[in-house]
Amino acid sequence: MTKGSEFDIIARYFKPLALADDGAFGLGDDAAILNVPNGQHLVVTSDALVADVHFLSTQSPQDIAHKVVGVNLSDLAAMGAHPRAVFLAAQFPNDIKEPWIADFALGFAEALASSGAVLMGGDTVSTPGPLAFTLTALGFQAQKHVLTRAGANVGDALFVSGTIGDGALGLLSATGKLPEHEDLYQRYARPQPRLALGQALAERGLASACIDISDGLIADVGHICEQSNTSATLEYSSIPLSESAQTLVLAQSDLKDLIVGGGDDYELAFTVKAEHIAAVFALGLELDVQVTRIGLVEAPGQGVRILDTEAKVMTVSSPGFHHF
Amino acid sequence: MTKGSEFDIIARYFKPLALADDGAFGLGDDAAILNVPNGQHLVVTSDALVADVHFLSTQSPQDIAHKVVGVNLSDLAAMGAHPRAVFLAAQFPNDIKEPWIADFALGFAEALASSGAVLMGGDTVSTPGPLAFTLTALGFQAQKHVLTRAGANVGDALFVSGTIGDGALGLLSATGKLPEHEDLYQRYARPQPRLALGQALAERGLASACIDISDGLIADVGHICEQSNTSATLEYSSIPLSESAQTLVLAQSDLKDLIVGGGDDYELAFTVKAEHIAAVFALGLELDVQVTRIGLVEAPGQGVRILDTEAKVMTVSSPGFHHF
Repeated sequence: MTKGSEFDIIARYFKPLALADDGAFGLGDDAAILNVPNGQHLVVTSDALVADVHFLSTQSPQDIAHKVVGVNLSDLAAMGAHPRAVFLAAQFPNDIKEPWIADFALGFAEALASSGAVLMGGDTVSTPGPLAFTLTALGFQAQKHVLTRAGANVGDALFVSGTIGDGALGLLSATGKLPEHEDLYQRYARPQPRLALGQALAERGLASACIDISDGLIADVGHICEQSNTSATLEYSSIPLSESAQTLVLAQSDLKDLIVGGGDDYELAFTVKAEHIAAVFALGLELDVQVTRIGLVEAPGQGVRILDTEAKVMTVSSPGFHHF
Repeated sequence: MTKGSEFDIIARYFKPLALADDGAFGLGDDAAILNVPNGQHLVVTSDALVADVHFLSTQSPQDIAHKVVGVNLSDLAAMGAHPRAVFLAAQFPNDIKEPWIADFALGFAEALASSGAVLMGGDTVSTPGPLAFTLTALGFQAQKHVLTRAGANVGDALFVSGTIGDGALGLLSATGKLPEHEDLYQRYARPQPRLALGQALAERGLASACIDISDGLIADVGHICEQSNTSATLEYSSIPLSESAQTLVLAQSDLKDLIVGGGDDYELAFTVKAEHIAAVFALGLELDVQVTRIGLVEAPGQGVRILDTEAKVMTVSSPGFHHF
């Protein structure tokens, strides 16, 4: 891609996404301008996704766009922030075709649509390497409400949203290592950031710590424990599984490792004081989001333990990270 | 790089750069939090740089870090903003060596040092492709002061800071296409964003439009003309050249095309109403930054023209973009 065609690509496919806000200058200036409302703090996250590391280059451009946006907004959800603006730095391989970019822009707009965020800037460059995207998202929240990984207390209940393990199973399904499961693939391909849940947990003061599950349940609960100086014990039988995941695990019990160790779910894991447990269940009903209590925050020193149905500590192979 | 070593790399080399601000959580949370001072607007820019497209993979890690930071902060300089925070998404090739990353982090800290910005977050991933970085910078400025590419008026004088063409000549020198010139290479390798100049032009209301010269003098003045709906005429003999550039152009006159068409200078080009011209020269003296009047803003329809010493319009081959 030459610089000339870079300008064309931006004007044709990305500028239309940036017209909602004058501060984006139609992507035609050096930077964008944003107003931050009084009393609000800025919450900022940045994620890089590389083809065949973080997504499959064989996926549809729309699916890849949903992944790029979903992964990034999920970090804002974990802090309880309201998305406001995203900045997309796209690295397109030299041989990329224009219809691919058109479809990507379409998926990108779809994925942003209900989030509250608009595209306000970025960069488009060509690369001799793989397709890659860096998305930086800016959100707002009052500082007193912002959720962090620190703040879990011994005795707090540990919750997760949605169902766990679908993302990792969906990836295996997409790469032919498991039978095809369209529902699991969708969970892998198009993560739905838990924005409304994160925002409500934050603003109602219901969670003491929160994280999104990207590296895997054990690893991410481990991040809460590290930052909060606690341990945690989970019951495997309490972990919410989708119907497809249940069927697969029944047939192949070593997939349990993937449920607790695989990543890419983009659900929230959060800790809740006893006095707020009822309110958290009520909130789940209100938002129509499944919330499940799966364990307990304990005194530091034990790390993250998972108990099997006989209350024995499960041994999990290579928890924490599964790319391909 | 596995996820495990990703965490190690971040903790060892990038976390120390992020300790100045509690809102970065030592790079240990999902996102960072920033307070935006009352009356200030946020100015945001994002740039992607890929090895052997935007920098040479043979350059030192410190030089590459200076380039990544300089290019990005230069966009804030062009808007007159005060840098506050940067977010670095690094794509490291699988075979990257740890000392390389250590040196990069060192150069990164050096390049940020006097800017006012601190590293507040980002991402570190491995890639089967080339080394690449996306930097997103956040700065502050009151909206009424922010400089844009729009706003130039017919009759305004056109100015540039520093000397022009050194970046493009430095690249040729680095790739052996010109004799070695350490001073020109430094200008290519370590752009110095004109932050103090941009901020003062903005806050004193001295510039009607401003841009940084990244694509080349003609192309970037062209961007001002497009956004401001004007034309511009420049005198080649007025364009400020460094001593090394003068020597090279004297010996090889076709390098003139590179002076006006090459990029990578990261100087500012800005337009000034007649009544502010004296104040702009005074500001240059005050800040010890060379500022030079090189042309005039005219009515739309002519584009950007450069007059040679006989006042004839110069023909420039492929203006606007020179990568390798």
